Amino acid sequence: MTEFPQPVDGTRVPRFAGIPTFMRLPLELNPAKLDIALVGVPFDGGTTNRAGARHGPREIRNMSSLMRRVHPVSRIAPYELCRIADHGDVPVAPVDVMGSLVTITEFYCRLDDAGARPLSVGGDHLISLPILRALARRRPLGMVHFDSHSDTADSYFSGNRFTHGTPFRRAIEEGLLDPKRVVQIGVRGSLYRADEETFALDAGVRIIHIDEFFALGVDDVNAEARRIVGDGPVYVSFDVDAIDPAFAPGTGTPEIGGFSTADAQRMIRALDGLDLVGADVVEVSPPFDPSGMTALVGATLMFEIVCVLAAAVSRGTR
Amino acid sequence: MTEFPQPVDGTRVPRFAGIPTFMRLPLELNPAKLDIALVGVPFDGGTTNRAGARHGPREIRNMSSLMRRVHPVSRIAPYELCRIADHGDVPVAPVDVMGSLVTITEFYCRLDDAGARPLSVGGDHLISLPILRALARRRPLGMVHFDSHSDTADSYFSGNRFTHGTPFRRAIEEGLLDPKRVVQIGVRGSLYRADEETFALDAGVRIIHIDEFFALGVDDVNAEARRIVGDGPVYVSFDVDAIDPAFAPGTGTPEIGGFSTADAQRMIRALDGLDLVGADVVEVSPPFDPSGMTALVGATLMFEIVCVLAAAVSRGTR
Amino acid sequence: MTEFPQPVDGTRVPRFAGIPTFMRLPLELNPAKLDIALVGVPFDGGTTNRAGARHGPREIRNMSSLMRRVHPVSRIAPYELCRIADHGDVPVAPVDVMGSLVTITEFYCRLDDAGARPLSVGGDHLISLPILRALARRRPLGMVHFDSHSDTADSYFSGNRFTHGTPFRRAIEEGLLDPKRVVQIGVRGSLYRADEETFALDAGVRIIHIDEFFALGVDDVNAEARRIVGDGPVYVSFDVDAIDPAFAPGTGTPEIGGFSTADAQRMIRALDGLDLVGADVVEVSPPFDPSGMTALVGATLMFEIVCVLAAAVSRGTR
Amino acid sequence: MTEFPQPVDGTRVPRFAGIPTFMRLPLELNPAKLDIALVGVPFDGGTTNRAGARHGPREIRNMSSLMRRVHPVSRIAPYELCRIADHGDVPVAPVDVMGSLVTITEFYCRLDDAGARPLSVGGDHLISLPILRALARRRPLGMVHFDSHSDTADSYFSGNRFTHGTPFRRAIEEGLLDPKRVVQIGVRGSLYRADEETFALDAGVRIIHIDEFFALGVDDVNAEARRIVGDGPVYVSFDVDAIDPAFAPGTGTPEIGGFSTADAQRMIRALDGLDLVGADVVEVSPPFDPSGMTALVGATLMFEIVCVLAAAVSRGTR
Amino acid sequence: MTEFPQPVDGTRVPRFAGIPTFMRLPLELNPAKLDIALVGVPFDGGTTNRAGARHGPREIRNMSSLMRRVHPVSRIAPYELCRIADHGDVPVAPVDVMGSLVTITEFYCRLDDAGARPLSVGGDHLISLPILRALARRRPLGMVHFDSHSDTADSYFSGNRFTHGTPFRRAIEEGLLDPKRVVQIGVRGSLYRADEETFALDAGVRIIHIDEFFALGVDDVNAEARRIVGDGPVYVSFDVDAIDPAFAPGTGTPEIGGFSTADAQRMIRALDGLDLVGADVVEVSPPFDPSGMTALVGATLMFEIVCVLAAAVSRGTR
Amino acid sequence: MTEFPQPVDGTRVPRFAGIPTFMRLPLELNPAKLDIALVGVPFDGGTTNRAGARHGPREIRNMSSLMRRVHPVSRIAPYELCRIADHGDVPVAPVDVMGSLVTITEFYCRLDDAGARPLSVGGDHLISLPILRALARRRPLGMVHFDSHSDTADSYFSGNRFTHGTPFRRAIEEGLLDPKRVVQIGVRGSLYRADEETFALDAGVRIIHIDEFFALGVDDVNAEARRIVGDGPVYVSFDVDAIDPAFAPGTGTPEIGGFSTADAQRMIRALDGLDLVGADVVEVSPPFDPSGMTALVGATLMFEIVCVLAAAVSRGTR
Repeated sequence: MTEFPQPVDGTRVPRFAGIPTFMRLPLELNPAKLDIALVGVPFDGGTTNRAGARHGPREIRNMSSLMRRVHPVSRIAPYELCRIADHGDVPVAPVDVMGSLVTITEFYCRLDDAGARPLSVGGDHLISLPILRALARRRPLGMVHFDSHSDTADSYFSGNRFTHGTPFRRAIEEGLLDPKRVVQIGVRGSLYRADEETFALDAGVRIIHIDEFFALGVDDVNAEARRIVGDGPVYVSFDVDAIDPAFAPGTGTPEIGGFSTADAQRMIRALDGLDLVGADVVEVSPPFDPSGMTALVGATLMFEIVCVLAAAVSRGTR
Repeated sequence: MTEFPQPVDGTRVPRFAGIPTFMRLPLELNPAKLDIALVGVPFDGGTTNRAGARHGPREIRNMSSLMRRVHPVSRIAPYELCRIADHGDVPVAPVDVMGSLVTITEFYCRLDDAGARPLSVGGDHLISLPILRALARRRPLGMVHFDSHSDTADSYFSGNRFTHGTPFRRAIEEGLLDPKRVVQIGVRGSLYRADEETFALDAGVRIIHIDEFFALGVDDVNAEARRIVGDGPVYVSFDVDAIDPAFAPGTGTPEIGGFSTADAQRMIRALDGLDLVGADVVEVSPPFDPSGMTALVGATLMFEIVCVLAAAVSRGTR
Repeated sequence: MTEFPQPVDGTRVPRFAGIPTFMRLPLELNPAKLDIALVGVPFDGGTTNRAGARHGPREIRNMSSLMRRVHPVSRIAPYELCRIADHGDVPVAPVDVMGSLVTITEFYCRLDDAGARPLSVGGDHLISLPILRALARRRPLGMVHFDSHSDTADSYFSGNRFTHGTPFRRAIEEGLLDPKRVVQIGVRGSLYRADEETFALDAGVRIIHIDEFFALGVDDVNAEARRIVGDGPVYVSFDVDAIDPAFAPGTGTPEIGGFSTADAQRMIRALDGLDLVGADVVEVSPPFDPSGMTALVGATLMFEIVCVLAAAVSRGTR
Repeated sequence: MTEFPQPVDGTRVPRFAGIPTFMRLPLELNPAKLDIALVGVPFDGGTTNRAGARHGPREIRNMSSLMRRVHPVSRIAPYELCRIADHGDVPVAPVDVMGSLVTITEFYCRLDDAGARPLSVGGDHLISLPILRALARRRPLGMVHFDSHSDTADSYFSGNRFTHGTPFRRAIEEGLLDPKRVVQIGVRGSLYRADEETFALDAGVRIIHIDEFFALGVDDVNAEARRIVGDGPVYVSFDVDAIDPAFAPGTGTPEIGGFSTADAQRMIRALDGLDLVGADVVEVSPPFDPSGMTALVGATLMFEIVCVLAAAVSRGTR
Repeated sequence: MTEFPQPVDGTRVPRFAGIPTFMRLPLELNPAKLDIALVGVPFDGGTTNRAGARHGPREIRNMSSLMRRVHPVSRIAPYELCRIADHGDVPVAPVDVMGSLVTITEFYCRLDDAGARPLSVGGDHLISLPILRALARRRPLGMVHFDSHSDTADSYFSGNRFTHGTPFRRAIEEGLLDPKRVVQIGVRGSLYRADEETFALDAGVRIIHIDEFFALGVDDVNAEARRIVGDGPVYVSFDVDAIDPAFAPGTGTPEIGGFSTADAQRMIRALDGLDLVGADVVEVSPPFDPSGMTALVGATLMFEIVCVLAAAVSRGTR
Repeated sequence: MTEFPQPVDGTRVPRFAGIPTFMRLPLELNPAKLDIALVGVPFDGGTTNRAGARHGPREIRNMSSLMRRVHPVSRIAPYELCRIADHGDVPVAPVDVMGSLVTITEFYCRLDDAGARPLSVGGDHLISLPILRALARRRPLGMVHFDSHSDTADSYFSGNRFTHGTPFRRAIEEGLLDPKRVVQIGVRGSLYRADEETFALDAGVRIIHIDEFFALGVDDVNAEARRIVGDGPVYVSFDVDAIDPAFAPGTGTPEIGGFSTADAQRMIRALDGLDLVGADVVEVSPPFDPSGMTALVGATLMFEIVCVLAAAVSRGTR
């Protein structure tokens, strides 16, 4: 399997050396040469409060040098299963929200047309919308969505409908997601209004709030999530603020009282076997991350996801 | 219910904008117009080691901009239940311990005379003593006390009897607390002397050390706490160092091995139904909080408490 | 002169106490009651690289608690000369560049109509454009502009004409500034293109690059600046990145090799006597300012400017 | 028992005052006067990625001022049980790996010859090897090893056999450890190669990976660990990266998804009763610890260990 | 001259190793064995705003490990000229201002009685008062005082006369200083009141404000300072906030627009030849010093002063 | 000139986007395609105190995204003059000093054989030695050396002759440098021994200590430096600790009282016209650089040097 791209080996070249790509993999700009494309989307133009997620891809690339090749529990060796590489960043414009949404969708259409499945790093959560516009062109997708917020608000600031608090309302309205196959895990932030979750719930979204999460335990949450999304194509969206800010302080809208990184890892591992068509990790905001640990969390979540995604590719699902 | 003060709405004016008051509520200096007064007590003159809690009110005000209006689990909407506002800071003098104690008591007597219940933000834990001197003028109070230390030492440094390690010994001696209705949760710091807790235990205080806490679990701790304080008037004092420093590093005397913020939230929610007469959140020390997460913890604990306190007001207890 | 608003006195109430307004002055939302309005514009939607200036007003308010009442060199006591207060923040929308420009202009038209002169705190440098649209409605203004960049580029990212690199090109094109009465001091950043300054120079703008600055010395720079702007109405725009990042690291586009804060202070003091109609301090970005010293620089520049602006008001210029 | 060295009392001299020694104990350079020697080994020459553990002893000394005298759960008062003091630092050379290994072994041979048991603070994990070379001169030792990595690789960077990833392979090869009496707890990092743990497992080492750890729970892990090491002499090696980086971010090779400090404390307390001959706490790296909490974790782990080690001394084991 | 205490040599034992004493000198608690005593005074109970200078001695000890033995310009080798050592910290009580003032004075009387000249590290500026009470028992002293504030206010917060803003007013009132032999260099903070400097000026103190400092240049400032203090006994008090916060951000009351560390060094070197009886370096506040550079400034100023003080001792002045 | 490699344009793709190479130039691993090779040498194995410079290349690459294309003063456009690209990092081994020296020399021999001139980024100052071993194979070089230390010590720690304090003694001993054509600028650190500079001075090195630097002024220093190095081939070595730590705190051995970045820029610009054969920028240590400004200084010094180096190439010197 030596034809697949391989990471630089940390036992030969130290991990602090060299140009930091995702996982120390080669940079491959041709989507036709990829089964899984690791993509940065350095855009936080949808952020309603503390910006900074635009710097997420760069710092996560940096910290991803600590990742190695074989998963310690599942023993999946993703780079032996398929072609995975760093596919660079989408050339967004920080001062232009609507234009950047178009740019992102076009970028992912090219990926999707070439048959590469994307694992993206934000950027803020608004980026999931233009990604879904590309990936769900043929049919609506199910979604496993980790977050401390439902992100199904209607608008902010006198009618702005495209923010990081609204992507999944738009995605449901546009038919990109099948709401009955959407599960949101870890929701817990205080609410602007008592009826704030009505749209999502009425549409059929299953919200596992954090109090239910702790009552059920991780294993039952995993079972419930798999039940909701079923056998169809599934997108995974991981907002790092789903995790407690003790573990991941570097994010724009932290909410205390979340689950741990160990919980997160167990939930991602449980996605193995699903028909995964793509995923993202969003809202890592380096300016608010003095210890760099949130970027490490982001990089490790990427590695966890790349393992289950590579397994899905190698099974030939899709 | 539009006559009650309301926070600035983060979906209309972004959360980083404007003068930071507690919860983005109006500033209301007249206690007669308040049912619950949010008060800063920027005093750390009782601190025996690392000072800085004097900056707590300002940074907690700042971070409290992230709080919204409705509790995500209990669905309590506190600002629809009663009159709550920012009541400003007590004008303490950092170089004058004894004078500041008098100033604080006078400030809270005015509040108490007007019928407003205080939710205070320290400052160090010594501030609880002058607050109790105002609130317990008519009868001793019960107390639910979250802390990694018992704070019932006798004196420091050749006889200094008023420090942040001594407030509740003084309060018991002065008859402000009924020690048999006092429960301390999370105590775990190493001890200066083997008999350090003798005074508290002899007086009848119930100490749930951290090892007992983990053995019992949160639900049983909650039941035990409610059993201890019973139906009488209760004060809540939350020293942020009760929480593990992974979650709340910005404090002067951190002790590892504590409970999580999720645990803390569940314990505060379980106070709903008690006859709560006031509360404080103390020992948030911004100079030791590079990520700002401890101030966020403080702000969220305030929101948790304001919900159960508003419920108590609306029930007409007292 | 006791009718004028006065700051809270730091010898009576400690500087860390209380709600942080600009200079600890009262909050006064009625422009008719003000001669000078201190305004926050927490908008960084024009930032092409590292965002964060949206948090500038809040942190500068915080640090401005260290300012006192009387200038140590000029002995100007601004709060005895006229009515000065914190006028709050413009309610911008972080996700909406064009809408926010309109909101800002409307806000300043109201101020200008009431006869109050604004001293604004950004936010990024794009905010100067909508401010000038309000202040220059009757005639073009001269400008003393401190910056490490000329900010007269045409567009970014495929035609985006409204960024923090373009405000003064727009202002000249719109007739808001008289380019022959504009002086830019401290320009030094490396250039995208060799002809990058052609527009400004052709229009008649006087650029004092940093090498000329050091060759001339502060006194000659001051003389040249006064010669350029002359006797007409003058706006002052101070981008904190004009100052060397050793003194002001917390900014989005730092350029090494700048002048010192002492130089900056001497240059602002030399503006005394001009017909100053308003001023701004922009590009303080707290997420990149771990020591907080850039916010202190911003607050002190505000105090320096408020002194010369109050003197201008009291002289009855305008 | 007043003849034993005692810490400076924090209720008499504040904890921030004075020269910071370990636990505020006296400095005692004569090993013959010690039962337990607290030793710093400021060496990180074996670090393959992020250095900085050389600064561990100094910052842990600093933070150890927060430790007091009596254990809050076991009520062990170690300084009343035997002679414990700060024994200074090994005079290593940061630019000389092989020479420093010799220096360290010689230093510990002197300690061992005098009958003092060492509790060491690193430095990186390579220091355990030269320490074991001194302590295991007479017979191989068992070991309880807390770590997120097995540290039994063969070599790095073209044949370098002495790094912080290889100490225990060397120790087993050299007969310093009895691999059948070695248990490793918390291992979880991704792997360079699928067969990376083969050497250790083939030798008989018991690895409790983190997923098994969470499945068993702390009590069963403790039982298993005691079963493995049995009644013979045991060394304890605690790599702080065993603990989740939320609790201990300041380390060179953090791995998310670990256990908590509360878990760590419970596991150390369960070592009481074993024939402990020495211990180390390694890989605390202050340059990556902006809040200082990792140094506090290191200091508290030292206090936990000193309690069980003093109990072992006082029982006369060995 | 080998009988004098010598620092640990950084070319033999690395600078990060070992217990951090001032300059890596031995700890010597007997004042009779010292010509110059390096003393920590970890007290900030007089601080009116941002506390933290209590941690100054410990961090300056830490950073002083970077100091070597011979001055690079004057070539003074202080440890070959007389007996210099770390004399420990004064055992102050952080919660007791008045008691600590007595403790400090008693400590320095013992030093003075033994004939040792103190070089002290604060702590806040209030510590200079109790030190002067010991050193000026026989006659008033002259003083070279570097500061951004005059520190001759009368009282704060309703009559508190002992704060870090008042020490030299008290010292003049008590006859400890001869105001006509006092020079203050670098004063520049904004003023609470226009007449704030009247007391000092009326008493005869020479204030060289920062604008005069820049106009004169360092050489003329040095000449003026020497003219003022003349041939009599002189105390040197260096508040680190005299230096611009770009160079020394870690202090409680920073004022921008100050002089550089190079200027400070040149001014201290110019004190060679005076009859120096003692000195202090105060207001280094580690919690506000994220890069540690202010502690390095403090340590280097100590080394600069110890050189001129050792020269004074070796000349036998006094 | 479009055949030369060009940086990614920050007005088209934002500066925070994409893989961070030096100056956003392409990665070109073939030295035959380069006139100037930008090389990282992530090695700090020679560091005697605070390590971390191994992370220098990565963070300087990151910050170099802020550099543009045209020099603001000289108007040199280096990427239009010759072929310049990122040539990657030397694959050093952090645990192997002597092996890494060999690896570095071999790497630079390949570059030199291909005719590419290197501009290197450390790493610590020891890296200059193996680089000079490659570049000076045919004849000794002159050197302009900016530093706060002479770096001509003989050995550390019992005879270790290869540290970051000794490279230029070795280089002179090995005949790589012509000491009479070497000038050291900014030397100021305190000395271990009074005769520490004897070797360098006896060999003929010209040391411009910082006091002479300030006395002469930058223009005269430039003239003296050019006089010393003359017309022969010249290497430039810039230790970032030459600059005052206010401007560049992130370095292992900071010394206060240095020159400014503006001074540094003027001195590099004055090297235009020399026969420059290579250069390095060393000792940027990101773990000690919380604001990132030292990495920006390093990136900007690189840009300044690349301008004069490209001019040298285009003149055809050599």
